[in-house]
Amino acid sequence: MNRVSKLNLSMLCDFYELTMGNGYLQAGYQDRITYFDVFFRSVPDNGGFAIAAGLEQLIEYIQNLHFDPEDIAFLRSKGVFCEEFLEYLADFRFTGDIYAIPEGTPIFPQEPVVTVRAKAIEAQLIETFTLLTINHQSLIATKANRIVRAAQGRTVLEFGSRRAQGVDGAMYGARAAYIGGAHGTACTISDQHFGVPAGGTMAHAWVQMFDTQYEAFETYCKLYPNNVTLLVDTYNTLKSGIPDAIRAFDTVLKPLGITKCGIRLDSGDMAYLSRKARKMLDDAGWTECKISVSNSMDEYIIRDLMMQGAKIDLFGVGERMITARSEPVFGGVYKLVAVEDKEGEVIPKIKVSENIEKITNPHYKKLYRIFDNQSGKAIADYLTTYDETLDESLPLELFHPVATWKSKTLTDYTAWELQVPIFKNGELVYKCPSLQEIQNYCKEQVDTLWEEVQRFDNPHTYYVDLSQKLWDMKQNLLKRK
Amino acid sequence: MNRVSKLNLSMLCDFYELTMGNGYLQAGYQDRITYFDVFFRSVPDNGGFAIAAGLEQLIEYIQNLHFDPEDIAFLRSKGVFCEEFLEYLADFRFTGDIYAIPEGTPIFPQEPVVTVRAKAIEAQLIETFTLLTINHQSLIATKANRIVRAAQGRTVLEFGSRRAQGVDGAMYGARAAYIGGAHGTACTISDQHFGVPAGGTMAHAWVQMFDTQYEAFETYCKLYPNNVTLLVDTYNTLKSGIPDAIRAFDTVLKPLGITKCGIRLDSGDMAYLSRKARKMLDDAGWTECKISVSNSMDEYIIRDLMMQGAKIDLFGVGERMITARSEPVFGGVYKLVAVEDKEGEVIPKIKVSENIEKITNPHYKKLYRIFDNQSGKAIADYLTTYDETLDESLPLELFHPVATWKSKTLTDYTAWELQVPIFKNGELVYKCPSLQEIQNYCKEQVDTLWEEVQRFDNPHTYYVDLSQKLWDMKQNLLKRK
Repeated sequence: MNRVSKLNLSMLCDFYELTMGNGYLQAGYQDRITYFDVFFRSVPDNGGFAIAAGLEQLIEYIQNLHFDPEDIAFLRSKGVFCEEFLEYLADFRFTGDIYAIPEGTPIFPQEPVVTVRAKAIEAQLIETFTLLTINHQSLIATKANRIVRAAQGRTVLEFGSRRAQGVDGAMYGARAAYIGGAHGTACTISDQHFGVPAGGTMAHAWVQMFDTQYEAFETYCKLYPNNVTLLVDTYNTLKSGIPDAIRAFDTVLKPLGITKCGIRLDSGDMAYLSRKARKMLDDAGWTECKISVSNSMDEYIIRDLMMQGAKIDLFGVGERMITARSEPVFGGVYKLVAVEDKEGEVIPKIKVSENIEKITNPHYKKLYRIFDNQSGKAIADYLTTYDETLDESLPLELFHPVATWKSKTLTDYTAWELQVPIFKNGELVYKCPSLQEIQNYCKEQVDTLWEEVQRFDNPHTYYVDLSQKLWDMKQNLLKRK
Repeated sequence: MNRVSKLNLSMLCDFYELTMGNGYLQAGYQDRITYFDVFFRSVPDNGGFAIAAGLEQLIEYIQNLHFDPEDIAFLRSKGVFCEEFLEYLADFRFTGDIYAIPEGTPIFPQEPVVTVRAKAIEAQLIETFTLLTINHQSLIATKANRIVRAAQGRTVLEFGSRRAQGVDGAMYGARAAYIGGAHGTACTISDQHFGVPAGGTMAHAWVQMFDTQYEAFETYCKLYPNNVTLLVDTYNTLKSGIPDAIRAFDTVLKPLGITKCGIRLDSGDMAYLSRKARKMLDDAGWTECKISVSNSMDEYIIRDLMMQGAKIDLFGVGERMITARSEPVFGGVYKLVAVEDKEGEVIPKIKVSENIEKITNPHYKKLYRIFDNQSGKAIADYLTTYDETLDESLPLELFHPVATWKSKTLTDYTAWELQVPIFKNGELVYKCPSLQEIQNYCKEQVDTLWEEVQRFDNPHTYYVDLSQKLWDMKQNLLKRK
């Protein structure tokens, strides 16, 4: 089986979406307009914010949404779907609206990252893939952003393909890492498909392949004089690795007038070894030689290395970024928040649940980010019902959605609507920015957050507040149940 | 872009594999025969063993290995490869040998899960994908096996697609979970492609879509009388969820003579709620109604719930299985262990490194699993050089590879070679078992491990010992460096 070419991602749905879809059709609900929100409940790693990503793949998925005859045949073979539903699927396409927060935007718990307005079956069938792409890429973009911030301007490269959770984990993970601020990847296919710049020089095998380490280094310098990074820890970093590297630089690069080169440390204590290496290289006149490190890097280790004065120019980050190892799940959910009745009136819906944090914010909503005009910093996000208007010339009272007595009134502020239209009546109305534009935008937007919100541990909570009207409606729905 | 149909996984390699390949060609090493081992260094979650998985996808990848003209054009655009190498890639296919431990086998640190014998460039280029598929699927199969063992015979279903790290994370994760013992999945495409049985009934949206919860339940029972699992926590599990479910069962199923049905709990305390639910259902005469639970399940929570007498028939396990959340990385590595010289003699190679645990077991090896003939249990794995023979009629002395004074002599034992030939001279010589056969085999093989090795925390260490000849060679190589 050529596993890839036969894949129709429309079949990447949870089976219950199909049983429900079949049920909506038979219960006469197939044309009922529904509103679903994608939101998440907590930031991974107890961080202060996440980075939205994965929208471009959601768009591609929606555009390709269809069921092939072999898909229909497979579903028929399960023996649970009526022929009317299978016929419906044969002509299936997405005809609804999608609104979303653009990729690269800092996002916060409880706010709608994506909102789908569509007929019940359409909205239901896209649940799994919508969550999958937003959850996966937001997870990795968020983690990469933490790691990049820890590196304080040093280069961060994504090195994790071999430990990724599948091909997509590697490819789309590299894309998301780039959105979060990583400077490139080791993964060739991610460069080919997304333009994430790929690079790399040698593994231990190269060093072992030759009779001596020096011969391996000299050969590499001759082959790639303008792009040399020698891996110096195959046998002994300080005793033979760096001395052999310096000898190869002296023999091959110096006569060519080349001063730019690099070494990579992949084991041992990086604070100690990098300082020793820097001194050895500088003493030998290789002051422009960059020191790269790899080996289980993440934001915490990088922060510690920086604090300890490690002499590191480039961090190669593997498994801990590509899997977001310390918290490998982005818990986005997809919840019904409203339906339209036959007259087109929007009726809010709520899910209560035994766990308070699982209670949803009902209704079709608008989401604003409020910036303080003095500092230019983001102060809070603000959720209203879809039919409210926000007049920036009037004072705005924000209050805590649980501790409602905590409130403040803003006077000099700017409010942006965070969601933008992506699909209208099934037609794409959004032009995806380039990956580079998304990376730049992400950095700009993160810079609008106070440093207190950016802290890795125990950050200041950034509030997502509800308008009085939305808050009142939620309370009423809760009382009625 | 139709992202999927254009994907050539041969390009899923780390860029340094290509720079090294280009270098091997220019240095005249392209025909040099090399031996690489895939092995891992520690079991995730501090477990006693892992489960091998991902081989079938490695086989498909090797069979499809090639570079298309657009791949060559992309690589040319990078400006680092010589034309001779690009021509070489245009005709590239795998011509070497691969040996591997079959999927579903319990595996242990430091032993070769896959061994590749191939020309230098071929062996180098397949590094990333080989690791990716073995690491990903072994990770999930290992986690699933822990979870299934915790459930002590109760049904375990894989529910995690929406939280998976990409499409592959969902699809191949569901496949690997099935190998590890999960009984099915919620993921439709995994059923379609791999035959992992998919099922599912309703989400909260179904309940919210109707005017009342009861109407939602009744409608579902009418539509799917033979396959009903009602989600009872949308508003209040005990006050309205279970009473409404019982009423719907009574109204719709009872007149049809149907006694099999189900409810699902997705929030709240599962020990308390499941016992309450069981009593309510039994009191109403629905003794055959199965109770399913979902919501952040893993082996630890399941173990606790079982201990507390929870009345649960089925565990739906999401993010904590599909991402192996508690330890989402399987650290398999791909290391050069030998090369052949021009006369065909196999020359062992070692990598030393600053970190002792990163030192490799050199040489082309054989791997045996030793079973005690009295108990039928596996006692240890045993690594020899490729040219040693093991005569089961003779006593076998095993000794600890570090604490060498710890030894024991076996007399009544059976030895199996764990690796089997997969490719010979580039031709597939292995027939993949069905997924069901792999699952059955996995269960059988796990049963050969002592319970002490199967413990979740602080299991007994299962030893992977070296023959005297291999141990002596390793010491000599270490002294020489």
